[in-house]
Amino acid sequence: MLDSFEHLIRVLNRLPSIGRRSAERMALRLATDRGTLRKDVLAALRAVDETLTLCSRCGSLTEREADPCALCTSPRRRDGVLCVVEDPGDVLIMERAGGYDGRYHCLGGKLSPMRGQGAADITVETLLQRVREESISEVILALNTDVESDATAHYLRDVLRSRDVTVSHLAWGLPAGSGIAYADPQTLSRAMAGRQAMDE
Amino acid sequence: MLDSFEHLIRVLNRLPSIGRRSAERMALRLATDRGTLRKDVLAALRAVDETLTLCSRCGSLTEREADPCALCTSPRRRDGVLCVVEDPGDVLIMERAGGYDGRYHCLGGKLSPMRGQGAADITVETLLQRVREESISEVILALNTDVESDATAHYLRDVLRSRDVTVSHLAWGLPAGSGIAYADPQTLSRAMAGRQAMDE
Repeated sequence: MLDSFEHLIRVLNRLPSIGRRSAERMALRLATDRGTLRKDVLAALRAVDETLTLCSRCGSLTEREADPCALCTSPRRRDGVLCVVEDPGDVLIMERAGGYDGRYHCLGGKLSPMRGQGAADITVETLLQRVREESISEVILALNTDVESDATAHYLRDVLRSRDVTVSHLAWGLPAGSGIAYADPQTLSRAMAGRQAMDE
Repeated sequence: MLDSFEHLIRVLNRLPSIGRRSAERMALRLATDRGTLRKDVLAALRAVDETLTLCSRCGSLTEREADPCALCTSPRRRDGVLCVVEDPGDVLIMERAGGYDGRYHCLGGKLSPMRGQGAADITVETLLQRVREESISEVILALNTDVESDATAHYLRDVLRSRDVTVSHLAWGLPAGSGIAYADPQTLSRAMAGRQAMDE
């Protein structure tokens, strides 16, 4: 009974941070909506499916008609610096934060032995090729801070060692607007080790 | 830039309990997925759109080919008793809980002066018609317990008063697996007023 409804729940359940209960609530609203919601979601999803793609150079989200993407081709962005992120979404997050005007490179994942993801599953080869061909002088690793991402960062540092390129990572420390009491021990010890001089 | 992506976020944001941040995460995964997720969601949603509808008799979710729905037509359900709920989803929730073997009636909303929803916006007329035509002897109100739902329950009791029908509501009291300390004052006072004799 209601197979298509059950199926929709299972599919929505695969979305990030959508548990079974949220998926049920969403599916219910979608299935029983008497307004335009269901048609609107369908149309919006179809539009994304038809108009967006991943940039063939850096791997971030872009219009199909703009490949390489605006971030790769804009003359207002600095050449020679690459910010390496895990996922295309991380580019949007970095751009929203501001403070960076170079180019990007999406790995499309991270090293994860547990999930059987190795160096061949992330875009390391393309990264090395770009470092060479685009005369990159600095690679900034803007990866997550879990164990697998740390391992990925160390791996990238190692493969980039032989190239004439500076490798840095985003600063580790206390998040803004938080307090010592909310920081876990590893964050605190990293913040202590990486303590920064007060501006005069 | 990325208009279709922004639009998808806004549309997903209209889903229940999906805030802007969740909508962004969902849209990102949908837009950048390299597996089958996006196609699967599209197909699942299209299937729901094409195969499901609301039962023309009770208003709950059903296959287009099964209208009136299985709950309305099953010979194993008791006639003469109607459980009145607000939304089609509430029928699924009641059925999962079990303990009821009569028929259902979905109001399709509740009285909500703040949102301009009056008696004409819920299926009261159909309810009265069903009470008459289906020789209903008991109407069980399984509504929510907020102010508007309470007002709706009182309204229904009033319009049903002249009919030869018993009107009851689900018991109010302490939720299972919780504690006195977690109950709000109104729940506690209702639980006290409606206290039940211990089984011998």
